[in-house]
Amino acid sequence: MAESDPLRAILINCSITPRKADSHTQRLLNRVAGVLEAEGVDVTHVYALEHAIATGMLEDGAVVGLEDEWPGIEERVLASDILVLGTPIWLGQKSSVATRVIERMYASSGRRNDRGQWLYYGRTAGCVVTGNEDGVKHCAMDLLYALQHIGYMIPPQADCGWIGEAGPGPSYGDRLPGGGPPVGYDNDFTNRNATYMAWNLMHTARMLRAAGGLPAVGNTTEGWEHVSNAKDQNPEYR
Amino acid sequence: MAESDPLRAILINCSITPRKADSHTQRLLNRVAGVLEAEGVDVTHVYALEHAIATGMLEDGAVVGLEDEWPGIEERVLASDILVLGTPIWLGQKSSVATRVIERMYASSGRRNDRGQWLYYGRTAGCVVTGNEDGVKHCAMDLLYALQHIGYMIPPQADCGWIGEAGPGPSYGDRLPGGGPPVGYDNDFTNRNATYMAWNLMHTARMLRAAGGLPAVGNTTEGWEHVSNAKDQNPEYR
Amino acid sequence: MAESDPLRAILINCSITPRKADSHTQRLLNRVAGVLEAEGVDVTHVYALEHAIATGMLEDGAVVGLEDEWPGIEERVLASDILVLGTPIWLGQKSSVATRVIERMYASSGRRNDRGQWLYYGRTAGCVVTGNEDGVKHCAMDLLYALQHIGYMIPPQADCGWIGEAGPGPSYGDRLPGGGPPVGYDNDFTNRNATYMAWNLMHTARMLRAAGGLPAVGNTTEGWEHVSNAKDQNPEYR
Amino acid sequence: MAESDPLRAILINCSITPRKADSHTQRLLNRVAGVLEAEGVDVTHVYALEHAIATGMLEDGAVVGLEDEWPGIEERVLASDILVLGTPIWLGQKSSVATRVIERMYASSGRRNDRGQWLYYGRTAGCVVTGNEDGVKHCAMDLLYALQHIGYMIPPQADCGWIGEAGPGPSYGDRLPGGGPPVGYDNDFTNRNATYMAWNLMHTARMLRAAGGLPAVGNTTEGWEHVSNAKDQNPEYR
Repeated sequence: MAESDPLRAILINCSITPRKADSHTQRLLNRVAGVLEAEGVDVTHVYALEHAIATGMLEDGAVVGLEDEWPGIEERVLASDILVLGTPIWLGQKSSVATRVIERMYASSGRRNDRGQWLYYGRTAGCVVTGNEDGVKHCAMDLLYALQHIGYMIPPQADCGWIGEAGPGPSYGDRLPGGGPPVGYDNDFTNRNATYMAWNLMHTARMLRAAGGLPAVGNTTEGWEHVSNAKDQNPEYR
Repeated sequence: MAESDPLRAILINCSITPRKADSHTQRLLNRVAGVLEAEGVDVTHVYALEHAIATGMLEDGAVVGLEDEWPGIEERVLASDILVLGTPIWLGQKSSVATRVIERMYASSGRRNDRGQWLYYGRTAGCVVTGNEDGVKHCAMDLLYALQHIGYMIPPQADCGWIGEAGPGPSYGDRLPGGGPPVGYDNDFTNRNATYMAWNLMHTARMLRAAGGLPAVGNTTEGWEHVSNAKDQNPEYR
Repeated sequence: MAESDPLRAILINCSITPRKADSHTQRLLNRVAGVLEAEGVDVTHVYALEHAIATGMLEDGAVVGLEDEWPGIEERVLASDILVLGTPIWLGQKSSVATRVIERMYASSGRRNDRGQWLYYGRTAGCVVTGNEDGVKHCAMDLLYALQHIGYMIPPQADCGWIGEAGPGPSYGDRLPGGGPPVGYDNDFTNRNATYMAWNLMHTARMLRAAGGLPAVGNTTEGWEHVSNAKDQNPEYR
Repeated sequence: MAESDPLRAILINCSITPRKADSHTQRLLNRVAGVLEAEGVDVTHVYALEHAIATGMLEDGAVVGLEDEWPGIEERVLASDILVLGTPIWLGQKSSVATRVIERMYASSGRRNDRGQWLYYGRTAGCVVTGNEDGVKHCAMDLLYALQHIGYMIPPQADCGWIGEAGPGPSYGDRLPGGGPPVGYDNDFTNRNATYMAWNLMHTARMLRAAGGLPAVGNTTEGWEHVSNAKDQNPEYR
């Protein structure tokens, strides 16, 4: 892939680890970034905890006097064809930072694109989840649902992750005493799924670009009643 | 839309109500069917409880001596561009019938299409959820996650549903004493979302048809290591 | 523990594997049963798939002409101080059989005990979850929520389970080629949690027996308005 | 109830609304507080957003240079027999603040009480959830699971909440144009469940006090192998 206007991806790491260098989720995100870049996609990384992101159902926290870098991040999200959210698992759940990022994206749900569709239409999204115990699918379920709800197209197999066997233990990038590579790096299930996800995100993004996004009218607040719509269909007979 | 080869949709109602005529979920599915048909889509309905669907991680229950109509239903699922699963909510959860249908679809996950992708690739899916209390999003989350996991593309806003106010009360198609239309029929939020979903499913299906599905290689068991893949990317540096 | 009237526990395995002998979940349930029995608890096992359990929001399927052994099982559930539900994980979710069992328990939610409390009050419950990939906590969350909703007291750490590392692989009772014990049997995290759960269930059951269950009035349909109740409290001031 | 040493409850509101006075969840929490106080329970309120609560798997954020009031709040949590977490629903999920509070409680999970049990043993917990659309049970499921996992006893029917009909609309304490009381205040389902929860929390707390908590040994890291335990039970035969 060598396009004059390459696809753009933004990877937001919602780790709760203060230092990016210590985040295991970042390492798996790096692999995803590597696949995307090798295929010609422009990749932007955001480590959420390095930014002041206000808490609340707010488009811009500054309006209520809060320090808030979200509007700048959102601009980059909107400039990207692809969004990947990364989260660690704690107690089987996505992180508080991931929840906050979703809340802030949702807070813009009153805004529309120039066709009248929800703001994030025309883009595609996936997620990366790591933990040492259990919960990849549960976290992915939460994140992918939220993302499709606000306008993203979700390709097949749009999540990837790594966990160890039942119980606490080493994390993705940890080495066992005695040497050897970090415990998660050689897991082919994780590597395969990360590749599937990256591949499908790229190709879905390209498909959406080629089509100019989803056509409007039936998916807009102003338009849905003006085409074949649910309200006019008889619920009693079939 | 008037195509020589129209899009095909299959709507599977996973109600636990023995008689289809009593299913509130069916009524909202009927509206979705109405939108699709008005736009030229061929619609097939399946009321799961009218069929013997074996329980188990089985491709065909007959092999282990169980009565099983699933293989015939699956054939129709595979012949359809669009799948919509309908479920009622009980105790905040999708139905046991919906869970069984998902299990049976998942049981085919060892099979591949002629490109080596998971069997359901190249198709798109959504869901319809009704209850009288609470839980549309939770059920949708479960269903949409499962469907994307096995190969379906999930468009934005691919779910719709109806619930009443907190607590037990009338269901979607129930009338209040004193007359008036059934309580759920005039809910514009529900009607709008049902339209959004139907519209986005159609247009995603058409996009997938036009593109001939997602390209293969990076999303196949045999192929992923032969393109830019996660395993070859440095997780430590970025 | 040597009581004239020993505690009673019922363990319902909601596996979707036709033969009980093949169920990995059963093996972990057996260990839980072993702990309970060693402490003097009477244990009853039910392998749900060996029984015809009708689908539906039904107290007794026979009333609508369905073959239904649930009423007999429910009688044994009501005769037990302790309930443990066992489920396998498929696609990150509890099984369709577990969902059906919950639906049938919920279908009795109109009935009350002799104090006017929901039918299952005065009992305690936990769950056992096994899979080869991911999802113990998600399944436990679903099951424990449903059980507390219908009247069970949930002790701390009321779930246990086993999964392998990310990706498909051997199940709890599978042996690796090359010999050695089954892969899950020596997992101390699993064994510890199974012990915690069994211990806490016994002691919670004993506490409930000693107290004669939770006192009534504030938790009954007829009584709640006759004691200090939410309706009479000012929501605006505090 | 008139005890020399009254029960103590702490209610933590995890709203994302900057001002406590604007929180609908607070209003329902106030009703719960009213029931508890009328029955003689000492109630403490915490509005989480009024405190700097550091993000991370940290016992005390100050150690890594973060402003952090959590240790002081945790002290009050540990001094309370009863914990009630309140959360709003956004996009069908509990709030980011609730997720952060859970993370911080979980971060203490390495600590033990003087019997060797997890720190929060001997206490009981419930939750309050409000939103204008959908998701009470899903949020309650998440919260109650986390709380039982770290040591809390969960009584039956330990959650309550309010949502409006499908779709956006007024919140719990909002008035409709044209007058009348706030839309949620007269919902007897909500009021009943709030009463059930408060009642069951009090009586479970009293039961735990009377019994001196759950007995130790089988539920401690050091002790579980020294009583009847899962590891010693035959998984193959039953």
